[in-house]
Amino acid sequence: MTQKDAYTDPHYAKQALLPEGLRDHLPPYAELEAETVHSVMGVFQSYGYERVSPPLVEFEDSLLIGPAAKNSDNMFRLMDPESRKVMALRSDMTTQIARIASTRLKEHPRPLRLAYSGNVLRVKGSQIRPTRQFCQAGFELIGDSGIQAQIEVIRVAIEGLTQVGLKDLSVDLTIAPFVPAVCADLGLDQVKTAYVRAALDARDVGALQELPTRERKVFEAILQSAGDAQEAVHTLKALAFEGESVMYVIELARLVEALALEFPSVALTVDPGESHGFDYKIGVGFALFSKSVHGELGRGGRYQTSFADGSHESAIGFSMYLDRVMNAIPVPEAKRKVYVPHSVSQDVAKNYRLEGWCVIQGLTDEDNSLIRAQEIAASLGCSHIHSNGECVAL
Amino acid sequence: MTQKDAYTDPHYAKQALLPEGLRDHLPPYAELEAETVHSVMGVFQSYGYERVSPPLVEFEDSLLIGPAAKNSDNMFRLMDPESRKVMALRSDMTTQIARIASTRLKEHPRPLRLAYSGNVLRVKGSQIRPTRQFCQAGFELIGDSGIQAQIEVIRVAIEGLTQVGLKDLSVDLTIAPFVPAVCADLGLDQVKTAYVRAALDARDVGALQELPTRERKVFEAILQSAGDAQEAVHTLKALAFEGESVMYVIELARLVEALALEFPSVALTVDPGESHGFDYKIGVGFALFSKSVHGELGRGGRYQTSFADGSHESAIGFSMYLDRVMNAIPVPEAKRKVYVPHSVSQDVAKNYRLEGWCVIQGLTDEDNSLIRAQEIAASLGCSHIHSNGECVAL
Repeated sequence: MTQKDAYTDPHYAKQALLPEGLRDHLPPYAELEAETVHSVMGVFQSYGYERVSPPLVEFEDSLLIGPAAKNSDNMFRLMDPESRKVMALRSDMTTQIARIASTRLKEHPRPLRLAYSGNVLRVKGSQIRPTRQFCQAGFELIGDSGIQAQIEVIRVAIEGLTQVGLKDLSVDLTIAPFVPAVCADLGLDQVKTAYVRAALDARDVGALQELPTRERKVFEAILQSAGDAQEAVHTLKALAFEGESVMYVIELARLVEALALEFPSVALTVDPGESHGFDYKIGVGFALFSKSVHGELGRGGRYQTSFADGSHESAIGFSMYLDRVMNAIPVPEAKRKVYVPHSVSQDVAKNYRLEGWCVIQGLTDEDNSLIRAQEIAASLGCSHIHSNGECVAL
Repeated sequence: MTQKDAYTDPHYAKQALLPEGLRDHLPPYAELEAETVHSVMGVFQSYGYERVSPPLVEFEDSLLIGPAAKNSDNMFRLMDPESRKVMALRSDMTTQIARIASTRLKEHPRPLRLAYSGNVLRVKGSQIRPTRQFCQAGFELIGDSGIQAQIEVIRVAIEGLTQVGLKDLSVDLTIAPFVPAVCADLGLDQVKTAYVRAALDARDVGALQELPTRERKVFEAILQSAGDAQEAVHTLKALAFEGESVMYVIELARLVEALALEFPSVALTVDPGESHGFDYKIGVGFALFSKSVHGELGRGGRYQTSFADGSHESAIGFSMYLDRVMNAIPVPEAKRKVYVPHSVSQDVAKNYRLEGWCVIQGLTDEDNSLIRAQEIAASLGCSHIHSNGECVAL
């Protein structure tokens, strides 16, 4: 059978075939992803965020609590023959973390800091992102979502991404409830509010022309203020809102000021008209980007968890998807890898390992032939070989 | 609502309830498990085993290739609405690694060294082990399963378990094809061979009484030789087999000699009558134990992978389940965790982190009250507090 035949053999094809959107991660990618998760989790933990690890599958109901219900269509279902109930594969881990915080860790002192990483699966990939299994990593600060909590979460997110080598970061801030608050302040009814929100989300300046002058001017200003955070804050302050919306502007201003001071090299933008995609957030939302990669690296924001007695607790968190992050990560230097011929003592190999080398020891006699040993070393991807008591580059 | 009411509230119960055999791993367990996996993977990698990471779900067919077919009843099935095919959640990762080796990494030079870790799910837990989701970690040496490869794999397994603090390790060796080979050497037919294997697997000395004297003596000797490896080798050699079985005794003797020399503190046992549970292995099998925990920590052995053209490749690997390993791991010292009050500069917190501390920074003003700050620090599980420019133990 020729090489080509082997690849078209139906049995081979069957073995090699994976469902669309699912794939094998091979060396060196698989290791790099694992190390990246380990690094960011290390950062989260250094800020006191403790790891929790919920199961991959749960009863369907538990995974659809609150805002997670919108994921329903995108979750794989499976029947549990034991309980005869429907279970689902998680498509997002934040719902599980909120569940743990409000049940098993209900009595834990607040603020509660939790971190997590794990795989999530989705029924459908999107056109621009066909992958259906991702590794998600993040952390949640539960029981406090005030300005200091917001700063901490953005700080830890920036530091996590910086730690794994991402550069030229930018933070885009949104305030989902801001536009609805402005509408309320202006006395708009539900229908008009929905109209305005849709127009702003679509950045449809034309649609705003239909509004009375006063309202049109306000919303045009909001739309145009999107961009540099300091300028946006300036514009929004000048609009001099009354009522609840003022609170959001003040909060935004404080956040922008603190972040600009602490992270002068991180670009800060605001999109005050945006509420799409952050619907379940009750205040500030943020997304992190890097100039070197298309699409957001991660996002976070404020939300509320629910207790059994109907009471709520405010929280703020951040979550990143490793596929995006991996696209932006600089390729690390290959690990030093030395070939130690079969005849050399185990102690020599041990010493290399203690010095941090990856060591492949020969399994077969190389007939005392350096050339043969070098061939084997090279075929196994080694950078060096142990020869005549010395470490020699290949 | 009282505390008790909250816990009996049906909504609460719904949130907290997980399917039987599935659970949330909480602090500090979740972190300890993740660190343990990271450590053992580090050991595997230092021996040249490179990480691969297959998806959690695949087409059902791919997960049932070869010996994995026996897992069929214990795999969760799910429908893929995209391909309209049946997929399954993996219940074991070794089948996936063999698939990768014989397809995607078919052209990679041999021996191929691969490592993996990830979660697996099973439909049914067992009575003594009700858990249905495990973390599995292991490595495979593909393209060579000779005596040196066997020694390497057992070496890496011992070192991986030692690295995470396991003590008093023992290795139990089995040779699944040995009893069938002896039966063949003695000229037993299929029915008698099956009878003997069943008797030996059940350690049923009574059943052996039914055999003719010559055969009875041989199988009694095999049954009684189970135990200390050196003694077993001595007994088996003295039985002076002919034919194929001699080869297995010679191989076993070489392996025992090499392991005893390299790991004088590891207890070596052999169970030459055992073939149950290692059916798919084509030679030596081994299981690792620790005196401090009931049940095996991991197991491995020789097997064959299949290419599309019908050819095979011999391989040897090792796989551990983290639930078992975690039971045997010494509880590590708690990480140093310092509380830095809100008013203290970020730079102070940063310096602690650089020194390896876990740092929780206050989110609210503690009113310059040391007592209040100490209360917060203690409630958050800190061991120290930063006070008056110094690090003070609580």
